[in-house]
Amino acid sequence: MAKTSPPDSSRRSERSRRAIFDAALALVGEVGYDKLTIEGIASRAGVGKQTIYRWWPSKAAVLLDAFTEGVEDYSAGLPDTGDLAADLKFVLHATTDEFNDPAFQAPYRALAAAGANDEELSRTFVARLMEPGIRVYVERLRAAQEAGEVADDIDVRIAVEMLLSPFSQRWLMRTGELTYDFVDTLVDQFLRGVQPRG
Amino acid sequence: MAKTSPPDSSRRSERSRRAIFDAALALVGEVGYDKLTIEGIASRAGVGKQTIYRWWPSKAAVLLDAFTEGVEDYSAGLPDTGDLAADLKFVLHATTDEFNDPAFQAPYRALAAAGANDEELSRTFVARLMEPGIRVYVERLRAAQEAGEVADDIDVRIAVEMLLSPFSQRWLMRTGELTYDFVDTLVDQFLRGVQPRG
Repeated sequence: MAKTSPPDSSRRSERSRRAIFDAALALVGEVGYDKLTIEGIASRAGVGKQTIYRWWPSKAAVLLDAFTEGVEDYSAGLPDTGDLAADLKFVLHATTDEFNDPAFQAPYRALAAAGANDEELSRTFVARLMEPGIRVYVERLRAAQEAGEVADDIDVRIAVEMLLSPFSQRWLMRTGELTYDFVDTLVDQFLRGVQPRG
Repeated sequence: MAKTSPPDSSRRSERSRRAIFDAALALVGEVGYDKLTIEGIASRAGVGKQTIYRWWPSKAAVLLDAFTEGVEDYSAGLPDTGDLAADLKFVLHATTDEFNDPAFQAPYRALAAAGANDEELSRTFVARLMEPGIRVYVERLRAAQEAGEVADDIDVRIAVEMLLSPFSQRWLMRTGELTYDFVDTLVDQFLRGVQPRG
């Protein structure tokens, strides 16, 4: 979403970029999305407003880049040790730790809340942040399907939603605690539903 | 949450109460939760501010009562025809229609978004609006467990979250369409996971 990426050769640009991301994430957690401004981010980051506008067209664009850089790198996909249960529990335990971290919570919540009311922001948020996360699970399950660990007639996309949505919902709506025990039961019941019937 | 319920004998009070609920739901959809005020509700409803304050301590209290009155009555529980798949699809088709209705969407979204940032509001929202809905599914599944349609070792609460959270998340985050086809696949995969193994 950046209009022009800062030149990699410039360490000063990279420092500014990092400062802008840190400022944006901290501020949105403090004041909420509606009250977040480019001016506020610039002032907190110690850069000029024009520095931000040179790289990003809007506060949403800054935030989405800040998040994309902050969250796990999905490009490698999920681990595939051949043990689907162990792989899913391993990754979801790490995600549990991340979602229970207060430094992660505030900005992510602010963006999710703003997205509930703002359809365009929501679609960008989902496309940039949620879909890549969903996709690596879909790919891991397709591999398991090919290995015969998941039944052929399972709708893998909906199966992934049945695994991940209870987790997201507990966190976003605070309908329950995110614990390793919860994750383990979730994964076990999920596998019970997708495994081939013996 | 009402401090004093309007006397049932008074038709005028009942009319005011209804007007206040309608005004609160319409306004929160238009301006969002943060900008909703008791003054605004009173003016839209054509009543005095004091009428509202006599019955409710806050705008959150008005809204929650308005929603509680508006949503389905859960006291009767889910249908139990003895066919769990049919019962779940019947109810979730009705819920699909409801959640796709624009008149329902705006106020519910505004409240959900406000709750993502406001922990106390969120807890009340969940306790008053979401938990009663979750509970009737838990009860229906326990009945199915007793009838031998659901395996004894299933964690029923987590199973219900695996059924309902994908639905809620698609709606709230707009990660996918809510259609009867989606609901039917969701219910089928859900049942596959909870049924006793042959």
